[in-house]
Amino acid sequence: MLHTQLQQKIDLKTKPLGSLGLLEKIALQIGLAQQSLTPALHLPHLIVFAGDHGIAKDGVSAYPQEVTPQMVLNFLQGGAAINVFCRQHEIQLKIVDSGVNFDFEPNPHLINAKVGRGTSSFLSAKAMTVPQLQQCLLKGAEIINHIADTGCNVIGFGEMGIGNTSSATLIMSNICNIPVAECVGRGTGLGDEQLLKKIEILEKAFAYHGPISDPMEVLQTFGGFEIAQMCGAMLEAYKNNMLILIDGFIASSAFLIASKLQPKIISHALFCHLSDENGHRVLLEYLQATPILQLSMRVGEGTGCALAYPLLQSAVNFLNEMASFESAGVSKKD
Amino acid sequence: MLHTQLQQKIDLKTKPLGSLGLLEKIALQIGLAQQSLTPALHLPHLIVFAGDHGIAKDGVSAYPQEVTPQMVLNFLQGGAAINVFCRQHEIQLKIVDSGVNFDFEPNPHLINAKVGRGTSSFLSAKAMTVPQLQQCLLKGAEIINHIADTGCNVIGFGEMGIGNTSSATLIMSNICNIPVAECVGRGTGLGDEQLLKKIEILEKAFAYHGPISDPMEVLQTFGGFEIAQMCGAMLEAYKNNMLILIDGFIASSAFLIASKLQPKIISHALFCHLSDENGHRVLLEYLQATPILQLSMRVGEGTGCALAYPLLQSAVNFLNEMASFESAGVSKKD
Repeated sequence: MLHTQLQQKIDLKTKPLGSLGLLEKIALQIGLAQQSLTPALHLPHLIVFAGDHGIAKDGVSAYPQEVTPQMVLNFLQGGAAINVFCRQHEIQLKIVDSGVNFDFEPNPHLINAKVGRGTSSFLSAKAMTVPQLQQCLLKGAEIINHIADTGCNVIGFGEMGIGNTSSATLIMSNICNIPVAECVGRGTGLGDEQLLKKIEILEKAFAYHGPISDPMEVLQTFGGFEIAQMCGAMLEAYKNNMLILIDGFIASSAFLIASKLQPKIISHALFCHLSDENGHRVLLEYLQATPILQLSMRVGEGTGCALAYPLLQSAVNFLNEMASFESAGVSKKD
Repeated sequence: MLHTQLQQKIDLKTKPLGSLGLLEKIALQIGLAQQSLTPALHLPHLIVFAGDHGIAKDGVSAYPQEVTPQMVLNFLQGGAAINVFCRQHEIQLKIVDSGVNFDFEPNPHLINAKVGRGTSSFLSAKAMTVPQLQQCLLKGAEIINHIADTGCNVIGFGEMGIGNTSSATLIMSNICNIPVAECVGRGTGLGDEQLLKKIEILEKAFAYHGPISDPMEVLQTFGGFEIAQMCGAMLEAYKNNMLILIDGFIASSAFLIASKLQPKIISHALFCHLSDENGHRVLLEYLQATPILQLSMRVGEGTGCALAYPLLQSAVNFLNEMASFESAGVSKKD
């Protein structure tokens, strides 16, 4: 059994039993996902899916909707946090226009997968149509297949979209059956009063659509083109046996849907950072996931994935490179 | 004021205010320590101080004392966890024989700073003499000065020494005035019964010497040649304006003494990892320190420093490389 062999290989390394903590769990998980005693990470990629949200105009965000395309341009110019961290760790960064309310010039770093110029506000309609949802899942999968063709076996998921913590909140609330008020957070930085207004708006939207349990319908209703594309992309990454790095609250909400459609996907998922966004802790508990980093960040963009990547590499490296008690001539425990 | 200028530079980066969390605090701290709006990390080093402990023969550890020299040889051969992580992040690794009960062959990676072949057991004597303590502080300082001469401005502190969680426990208990039972932990992996025995032994040692409040006397009494050398080295690193990376419980106990001798040193200290060793959380709270990583490790060797290093680099990089709202043309908060 590979599981036993991997655990034994970990336990015979020159260190007190279990003393590499979470790194040991990650090494085991990666070994199992790759079905190998000598796993390896190849050509890491990070994809930032960007999309606009009808709900952004209804007063749920501290920033205006124009910030979505502005930040996409910032990504393309290399000036955002995710650019800095991907450069540091030699992670290939791709930006996807999943449905931003802006027409971008062609750019070698931008993948055009636009499904619309922002979703409809879920205050009075479903965020997207069924064909739009299907298109999202398909385009997300296509992007992954292109990347898998390069030999990449580890991929991080990030996002940008003013209003998308609202989408994620309602996805979580419906799927997990947890009240909106326990899923909601301050997003890009709402004050107390604005937060109360956000809760009021989201509870209204929840009531308008009634509780929904079907994951595809939840995704269609509360959407986010970028969230739906992430979901399709994650499912395809699993099919391609890639490691799936999940960033914060919004990427986790996409993963939540993906895990309902394909429960086995959890074996390939690594939760990179516990976001400061309020609902994320509860969502990770629901997913029984242990976050690798806890840096009190709430910036999105896949930053948690990029920052956690060297720790995945460390897990793989100790498994492949450390001496065993026997090879090093070190005495074992009394 | 540099503090205001640094905070402003951080706040004007293209991200929601405060959203890089702990990385923002680290960037501010490093900028202030280096008195620069564009700080930089140069030639990172990690030093593992190794020493033997008289108390190790009294039944406080799960491993025999021979493991100390065996692990030193493992470090020199490149097979330990710290070797793997330092290689990954291009951190220069130095091993110091502070007082191991073994005679090593000369080796380019080994610094001979031997003060004795292990301390005396503090069950019936002070761990070291006053001249030995002085020698430890001096040799620790010397090592740092050699490294500072290379241009290094960031240095991590790790250790190896069977029995040294016992030293750290009694140092913490005396300095912080916290009962032994709240400072003690399982070290390299004691079972429940062995842990009770360890507590009994350490309480006996505590009672034998009576409570001690003078930091130098605490260090002399409960010692650890490697702990005393780390303490001297940390103080000298502060004098050289280096960033001081603290690993786990034992390195933190050395820092605790250093901070009593030079309270300003805290400005240059970064606490890299919250150890699974029981007393470490309480000790970090006492020091009002926020650990960067929480990976449930308890391996020592400076592993937490090496693993946290890329996050320090990320903090410096975002400060130096990210665009501002103005330079990127991104709208600010409503």
